[in-house]
Amino acid sequence: MTETEKEYKVVIQLTGNDPAIQKATIGQVNNILKALEKVRIEVVTHSHGIELLFNNSAFKNTLEQLHGKGVTFLVCQNAMDAQNIEKGSLLPFAEIIPSAVAHLIIRQHEGWSYLRMS
Amino acid sequence: MTETEKEYKVVIQLTGNDPAIQKATIGQVNNILKALEKVRIEVVTHSHGIELLFNNSAFKNTLEQLHGKGVTFLVCQNAMDAQNIEKGSLLPFAEIIPSAVAHLIIRQHEGWSYLRMS
Amino acid sequence: MTETEKEYKVVIQLTGNDPAIQKATIGQVNNILKALEKVRIEVVTHSHGIELLFNNSAFKNTLEQLHGKGVTFLVCQNAMDAQNIEKGSLLPFAEIIPSAVAHLIIRQHEGWSYLRMS
Repeated sequence: MTETEKEYKVVIQLTGNDPAIQKATIGQVNNILKALEKVRIEVVTHSHGIELLFNNSAFKNTLEQLHGKGVTFLVCQNAMDAQNIEKGSLLPFAEIIPSAVAHLIIRQHEGWSYLRMS
Repeated sequence: MTETEKEYKVVIQLTGNDPAIQKATIGQVNNILKALEKVRIEVVTHSHGIELLFNNSAFKNTLEQLHGKGVTFLVCQNAMDAQNIEKGSLLPFAEIIPSAVAHLIIRQHEGWSYLRMS
Repeated sequence: MTETEKEYKVVIQLTGNDPAIQKATIGQVNNILKALEKVRIEVVTHSHGIELLFNNSAFKNTLEQLHGKGVTFLVCQNAMDAQNIEKGSLLPFAEIIPSAVAHLIIRQHEGWSYLRMS
């Protein structure tokens, strides 16, 4: 079994709303999907990072395609509360988690790799 | 045993002195304490991040409360030397470690999760 | 066996080309080498981070010395393609990997620690 045949798992943390970083995040997801045959990817957004998953997101179509390939997009409830955002403002495939940071900790304890977007 | 009943451990790396990032760090610590019943948290500061723990810190009272809840605050000796900072300039509950980056490596090898503040 | 006698492994992710961050990366590598007796260090560059390893790098001599001490410097092929960079533009000891993000995921699955440069 080669390195690319193993199943990998990764949580990608996004906190900023700079379009360049949003674009870089999508680029990294694509690079991971290209490089690793079996991989589970969760994009974990909190703070201003949740804007990536607003239903008026500039990357809406691309995100939908990535979701179709099995990529999961998560939004922090704490961040939604702090910014007064309702579920209806999110893309339909975005999933809400109680705490992004707790999720990142739990996933790493479960053996997932971690990538921090700058 | 649910996810929240397990004991988790996390090192949080802080290198900047931007008050917004200092505040976000404290917010994340609070979110972790709220989400996970049993968790050990170490805030590991180096570079300009050590300013969070100066004894004139704007967040002095909040940090003291978090320390009272078991959160550990660590300061890198290398960074103190580089910035000519003495132990007397730090909050009394701040603990000095020889090297922040070595500490972050060791903790991850021991199974701790890692979070990088932006 | 003390903490410093164990063998540690770390991947350090660098994505920016700000000279201050390049310098901080080198400083962290030096601090790790000083603190841990047995340690394998890989500096993994992608996006604008690959400029650290261009053959006109301002840190050329220091990087060569670190390479002589066993530090590995990796460059992402995806980033080279996106920026139209040829192998001849890189320092001779820089090694090319197909995907930096996939490499960071694989290494963490193998038990390596991870440090993200800001």
